[in-house]
Amino acid sequence: MLFNEYLQNGKKLVEKGIDDYLSELTYPPVIAQGMKYAVLNGGKRLRPILLFMTLDILGSDMEKGLATASAIEMIHSYSLVHDDLPALDNDDYRRGKLTTHKKFGEAQGILIGDALLTHSFYILTQKNNHLPASSIVEIVKLTSDYAGINGMIGGQMVDIESEGKKIDIETLKYMHSHKTGKLLKLPVECACIIASATNKEKETLTKYADLIGLAFQIKDDILDIEGDFESIGKPVGSDLEHDKSTYPSIIGLENSKKLLHETVEEAKNIIIKEFGIEKSSMLIQLAEYIENRNK
Amino acid sequence: MLFNEYLQNGKKLVEKGIDDYLSELTYPPVIAQGMKYAVLNGGKRLRPILLFMTLDILGSDMEKGLATASAIEMIHSYSLVHDDLPALDNDDYRRGKLTTHKKFGEAQGILIGDALLTHSFYILTQKNNHLPASSIVEIVKLTSDYAGINGMIGGQMVDIESEGKKIDIETLKYMHSHKTGKLLKLPVECACIIASATNKEKETLTKYADLIGLAFQIKDDILDIEGDFESIGKPVGSDLEHDKSTYPSIIGLENSKKLLHETVEEAKNIIIKEFGIEKSSMLIQLAEYIENRNK
Repeated sequence: MLFNEYLQNGKKLVEKGIDDYLSELTYPPVIAQGMKYAVLNGGKRLRPILLFMTLDILGSDMEKGLATASAIEMIHSYSLVHDDLPALDNDDYRRGKLTTHKKFGEAQGILIGDALLTHSFYILTQKNNHLPASSIVEIVKLTSDYAGINGMIGGQMVDIESEGKKIDIETLKYMHSHKTGKLLKLPVECACIIASATNKEKETLTKYADLIGLAFQIKDDILDIEGDFESIGKPVGSDLEHDKSTYPSIIGLENSKKLLHETVEEAKNIIIKEFGIEKSSMLIQLAEYIENRNK
Repeated sequence: MLFNEYLQNGKKLVEKGIDDYLSELTYPPVIAQGMKYAVLNGGKRLRPILLFMTLDILGSDMEKGLATASAIEMIHSYSLVHDDLPALDNDDYRRGKLTTHKKFGEAQGILIGDALLTHSFYILTQKNNHLPASSIVEIVKLTSDYAGINGMIGGQMVDIESEGKKIDIETLKYMHSHKTGKLLKLPVECACIIASATNKEKETLTKYADLIGLAFQIKDDILDIEGDFESIGKPVGSDLEHDKSTYPSIIGLENSKKLLHETVEEAKNIIIKEFGIEKSSMLIQLAEYIENRNK
């Protein structure tokens, strides 16, 4: 299968899954509609696709990861809904559409985010009957760890505290490895649980996820300077406007591009070393996609 | 054991548990401190005590429910943190102390709430090793169901939508049975899972939880009229100020007191019928406590 076709199929699969799961919810309408609005918004579905590709390389069936991929994407979406709130980034647009709180109201935005986060744990436990209970427990444990104070929320808090301050590269790395990185590792590690990966496979795949997580964030910072509104769906230069520390602002634009390229090369190499070039095809192309994307 | 002694012991036990679990968290400091501030604030710990008493009446060890009781109390606390935000109830005080967002800032308040909710699922899976994996999965499923759109968040949304409107008694019942009721049923049903209750025991105990949940809310509405700031820890008449529908505003103060008493009597009777008067002692006194409390 071609890479672009794989991306499209993965996106379709997970969006169908999320739509099915969320269509079970109807009341109160504003929460049910808001949850769908926040998740089914044209996202890249990078986290679900990472989960599917990891299942693939481990020889397991994509469908086995559908509930987990959907739940992780819902957690990603809730974090964006809360990030966009007036008290945080105060963003009116995301991917060219009104943010959830602008569309439904601020109180509603808070509750829609809470509902997405809460319901993701329902999906993990309710829609994973094909997995042993012990695997479901491991997945919930990992998810709540990587999405919480020791993961995504921790990174988000450091991000907020760093606004308007000069921070060093170590703080920047901590921030990104937690704010963005943990939720990119999560689908890879969940896929390892679902497919009963060996420790060595898990170690390699987790390292790969760390590296592409880093690459993803460097690229994000570069796009905030070089991208355009139509492609990235938010105002260019918003990091600068919010006085945020970024890779370009700390190590410079050219060094950031160099670091991005080296990081992607390393990610590709460790996967090839473990799984061979043929089986690694999709994960290689995913790493390159992260380097070359324009949105 | 005397009832008051039981309340104190249960409160101490769960507060020690929560303190231990949250003391594992240190970074970012504002989130770690904020989580403790929001939970360890002198609450009544009604939900944990309900869980302990249900384990007791089923002949199971209180310690077996410690992680679950702590997690449920953290979910209750997160909901209060988000309820108090400016976009929702905009309350500056709770139990006589500054609300979490007033103490730590609004963005921080949102993230502290998110972190409490997320970490509660970590505790349910990480600290329940003494339970079979299948029981942990059931507990997570129930918790995410009762705390989410079909439970607490659903009720909260209807509450917000009802402000400044005349609502009927059915809508009021829906609102409370979801906003408050589900999280009072949750510890009872979790205790039934932990103690492997029979279906009949579970049915009785769930019905009891429904009834005292209703009683709790009627009493809350009455206290908002008849209580005093020092006891209830928030301004008296704040429901009126927010133009909220309450039992007294819909059926009148005297009828509310009558309904409260009848509800508590029914709760006591069904427990006595199932478990006999001796074993029912604590749950009987808990129902009476809810009727007679002044805070």
